[in-house]
Amino acid sequence: MGSDSDLPTMEPAAAILRELGVEVEVRVLSAHRTPLEMVAFAQAARTEGFGVIVAGAGGAAHLPGMVAALTTLPVIGVPVRSRSLSGVDSLHSIVQMPGGIPVATVAIGGGLNAGLLAAQILSVADEALAARLADYRRRLHDAVAAKDARLLD
Amino acid sequence: MGSDSDLPTMEPAAAILRELGVEVEVRVLSAHRTPLEMVAFAQAARTEGFGVIVAGAGGAAHLPGMVAALTTLPVIGVPVRSRSLSGVDSLHSIVQMPGGIPVATVAIGGGLNAGLLAAQILSVADEALAARLADYRRRLHDAVAAKDARLLD
Amino acid sequence: MGSDSDLPTMEPAAAILRELGVEVEVRVLSAHRTPLEMVAFAQAARTEGFGVIVAGAGGAAHLPGMVAALTTLPVIGVPVRSRSLSGVDSLHSIVQMPGGIPVATVAIGGGLNAGLLAAQILSVADEALAARLADYRRRLHDAVAAKDARLLD
Amino acid sequence: MGSDSDLPTMEPAAAILRELGVEVEVRVLSAHRTPLEMVAFAQAARTEGFGVIVAGAGGAAHLPGMVAALTTLPVIGVPVRSRSLSGVDSLHSIVQMPGGIPVATVAIGGGLNAGLLAAQILSVADEALAARLADYRRRLHDAVAAKDARLLD
Amino acid sequence: MGSDSDLPTMEPAAAILRELGVEVEVRVLSAHRTPLEMVAFAQAARTEGFGVIVAGAGGAAHLPGMVAALTTLPVIGVPVRSRSLSGVDSLHSIVQMPGGIPVATVAIGGGLNAGLLAAQILSVADEALAARLADYRRRLHDAVAAKDARLLD
Amino acid sequence: MGSDSDLPTMEPAAAILRELGVEVEVRVLSAHRTPLEMVAFAQAARTEGFGVIVAGAGGAAHLPGMVAALTTLPVIGVPVRSRSLSGVDSLHSIVQMPGGIPVATVAIGGGLNAGLLAAQILSVADEALAARLADYRRRLHDAVAAKDARLLD
Amino acid sequence: MGSDSDLPTMEPAAAILRELGVEVEVRVLSAHRTPLEMVAFAQAARTEGFGVIVAGAGGAAHLPGMVAALTTLPVIGVPVRSRSLSGVDSLHSIVQMPGGIPVATVAIGGGLNAGLLAAQILSVADEALAARLADYRRRLHDAVAAKDARLLD
Amino acid sequence: MGSDSDLPTMEPAAAILRELGVEVEVRVLSAHRTPLEMVAFAQAARTEGFGVIVAGAGGAAHLPGMVAALTTLPVIGVPVRSRSLSGVDSLHSIVQMPGGIPVATVAIGGGLNAGLLAAQILSVADEALAARLADYRRRLHDAVAAKDARLLD
Repeated sequence: MGSDSDLPTMEPAAAILRELGVEVEVRVLSAHRTPLEMVAFAQAARTEGFGVIVAGAGGAAHLPGMVAALTTLPVIGVPVRSRSLSGVDSLHSIVQMPGGIPVATVAIGGGLNAGLLAAQILSVADEALAARLADYRRRLHDAVAAKDARLLD
Repeated sequence: MGSDSDLPTMEPAAAILRELGVEVEVRVLSAHRTPLEMVAFAQAARTEGFGVIVAGAGGAAHLPGMVAALTTLPVIGVPVRSRSLSGVDSLHSIVQMPGGIPVATVAIGGGLNAGLLAAQILSVADEALAARLADYRRRLHDAVAAKDARLLD
Repeated sequence: MGSDSDLPTMEPAAAILRELGVEVEVRVLSAHRTPLEMVAFAQAARTEGFGVIVAGAGGAAHLPGMVAALTTLPVIGVPVRSRSLSGVDSLHSIVQMPGGIPVATVAIGGGLNAGLLAAQILSVADEALAARLADYRRRLHDAVAAKDARLLD
Repeated sequence: MGSDSDLPTMEPAAAILRELGVEVEVRVLSAHRTPLEMVAFAQAARTEGFGVIVAGAGGAAHLPGMVAALTTLPVIGVPVRSRSLSGVDSLHSIVQMPGGIPVATVAIGGGLNAGLLAAQILSVADEALAARLADYRRRLHDAVAAKDARLLD
Repeated sequence: MGSDSDLPTMEPAAAILRELGVEVEVRVLSAHRTPLEMVAFAQAARTEGFGVIVAGAGGAAHLPGMVAALTTLPVIGVPVRSRSLSGVDSLHSIVQMPGGIPVATVAIGGGLNAGLLAAQILSVADEALAARLADYRRRLHDAVAAKDARLLD
Repeated sequence: MGSDSDLPTMEPAAAILRELGVEVEVRVLSAHRTPLEMVAFAQAARTEGFGVIVAGAGGAAHLPGMVAALTTLPVIGVPVRSRSLSGVDSLHSIVQMPGGIPVATVAIGGGLNAGLLAAQILSVADEALAARLADYRRRLHDAVAAKDARLLD
Repeated sequence: MGSDSDLPTMEPAAAILRELGVEVEVRVLSAHRTPLEMVAFAQAARTEGFGVIVAGAGGAAHLPGMVAALTTLPVIGVPVRSRSLSGVDSLHSIVQMPGGIPVATVAIGGGLNAGLLAAQILSVADEALAARLADYRRRLHDAVAAKDARLLD
Repeated sequence: MGSDSDLPTMEPAAAILRELGVEVEVRVLSAHRTPLEMVAFAQAARTEGFGVIVAGAGGAAHLPGMVAALTTLPVIGVPVRSRSLSGVDSLHSIVQMPGGIPVATVAIGGGLNAGLLAAQILSVADEALAARLADYRRRLHDAVAAKDARLLD
């Protein structure tokens, strides 16, 4: 993430990944305040064994796109809710990438889904993780079904 | 994709994947017109060997999110440019997914990037594909650098 | 509705219908978390004697459109106010349906009007209900007229 | 409709209703230019045997809401695409009705869906019409399925 | 105004007019709940001696435009701040009137300015009122100039 | 108007005023390019016998508000359609005036309505003009009624 | 700034400039309430030794553009967050200037950045100031780097 | 600029600067395709004698903000008009910079104004350039005044 004020948005990404048994490293790297550290991190990410990078940022949110420009690993961008524009600016700055450099964008404030998407990406080649994800979905399903059953009683 | 009118947007996704040596299957499945076929396809996708699903749709674009609800494979959503709202409606319908069911959203009309993102996802566990992606990036770089050199002459 | 967090928005729909003497069944069915139950419900709705379906959802709101795709009963969609985009995303996801599959959309947060619209639809073939609706309108009218009279005094 | 410039948007509503065997009367009534005729029409609509009213208008689109204020029949509003704001103004003026007076709003430019929704509303008490609607849906389905089959060949 | 919930927005209009010595009549007339009273009022307004009509409404705000359609007196529209769309819907519904029927629109929540505009309109043929308006402006000016002077000290 | 590129938008204002027998003076005064001339014009307008000022501008449209700040005559603002933002920027820059200085704003591109509104303002104290406006409205009405009659035949 | 209600937004501009050793003069000048003072100030600014002007305003924010029209000094515009439109109206009114008269616009509510931008502009010809700015950036960098280090521990 | 497709937008910046006698160097540097060259350029810009940097980009426009993060020279950002969102995304990505790193943003498509702003910035310490800018403004003024005179004849 680009600032520790993004932590409440990004925390659920790390939490769900840990819950699903995926190793996580959390960094504060800012496209605008520590640009050279960001460049170094992104360039080295694949060789250092990262599989997916989750990057959150708000306003003129350049972190996800800049990281994506410097690696061919899949990069997931989380538009952080901004004060004046409610995250519409963050969303535009992250999702509207030019041809050649994609960022996998999730909902404004969608830290949880960013973590899940990272796990789903890793699950393509990891059957055990796929099974844990299927289990997670089942629990989501059952919670809704239980509420429905209660209403029908 | 949900309709063959989405073909001009989605074609580049298939084309780049084929160029990168990734096997592609193109389907016309509509969340609204052939919902049961869509359900069947999404439920079976992982077992049938798919690794990533790219789904494009416009307006009240439900296809990517519904497919994502029915599989734990990563689903990439492409907001197709709509007539009245220029794809803002498509973008909202695809990216603003509720917690639990992520869709990896690319830019409005971003078919090419959807294909590249799919390849990047598969490249996590495929070094040869990662190398071909790095090569693709190098060509993008060199094209820009050449234009810059020409201007500096 | 797709989640019990939609209850405050959807409650007035059920309440006004009951007040108008219309039989109501309230369900929690999620397009994304219990998609198969949703499909089963929508497909069977007409045969099971439903006349109108009211569906509320927020964000990438797929429930109303998906239900509409699976029945020829009129489906009323209620865009639930979302956290970041105030329900604009919900509105777009519900109202911008493609040709062939309409959703009768009401205002953002418009649960009361969804219930009234359902009653108005049923009143086409139910004179007693039409009379109760006319009575409801008269009360709305009288409340405004009374305030106006007080100001003119 | 409020102006004959709305005809291209509204024509498909009348056409599909006639195709489905529903009797249609087309009027040009303007909330702003012939307000008294509009009032008279809306007040008398139920007694004159109308079942549903479809009203299209653009910009500050008051026709659907004003007709809805003067009858308890279901009123379907079609936001006509406007020159400067692409119909966003029309959509807001039609869908954001206050509590008590609903308008069943369809997509910007959604004339076809307005006609279908009208038919679906009438089909609640008309099994033959319901059957014709089911048939229409089947044809939509088959067209998509045929395109899909062609691609899989 | 269309509802007494619009009172906080509309009160300043009446207050400033009274302060400027202009006779005011405040009514609660709803385009949607008391449409016939609204029609009667607007049609009779000029003969009953009104000079300008100030109409405030929120959401699908039809009151100003409908009153404007029924009189040739100048009608000032005040978009009331709405819950979900912050008054953007109100603004669109009021300002985007079709050719032929203008509404003089002020800012979202601009009750004070509506009153001032009404006074300015009446001042075209009323020199004493024009003088009081000039005096009002002078006070606005002096208040700002005083703050500036204090900062420069 | 602020530029002669605004002429197509503003021409109908002058034309309808002349048709209604109102004397018109057309000026090109730019808030940004001839600010001092604009100041001089606005300050002198009431003494020179103007009754209403119609000002059109696009983008960061400052002309109507600045003229309004320098006179107590009613000022009508016409948001001119802009290239990138379709006049939304013009509308915001004109309608969202701070408390104290109103601008009577019409629709984006609403030159005709600006002229009509100016005439309606002058008609408050001019019965002959009021009669000509009533006549204009009658012709609008009859044109719509004629179209309606033709459809009913 | 145009009003002392803009003070919380504009204060950080003055504060950072003072911290960087730049001389600052703070004025309350309103484009709409003290237009002549604003004209006089802007016209004299360069001769009186000002180097950059920072102007903040909200809603129909005309101050930055009008000052820019009356001087060839660089003018920095700060869109102040507005009540109904969150500063989108302010941003449009400031940034969308016509060709010929630029305003250097910063983020909505971006007082701090306006001050920094003013310092950066002055630093083009002031090496000592450039050094202090470089130092400021280093502190920004180090704060982020420290947080990152703490997370990696 | 980030791509030679931005050339039509950025050309007027270079042209006006040359016309005003300012030395210009035009580069194609892409934040996403040649990120390392961009970093190198921005870091060296001040030492290599640049005074101001003008950067244009569209969509998720990261170039101006990234350059600004790597130099303390003033950076002017030009939002290039994008295909789907008309440059609103470009504007958000450029203007909404976080505290600490300002970008001086001009209008969407505002290449000419970017060039003029660059000249105005350099003119703070260059009286001859200030005189040429004053002359340019005079020509703008005279062109408008001439049109006004012609209309008054």
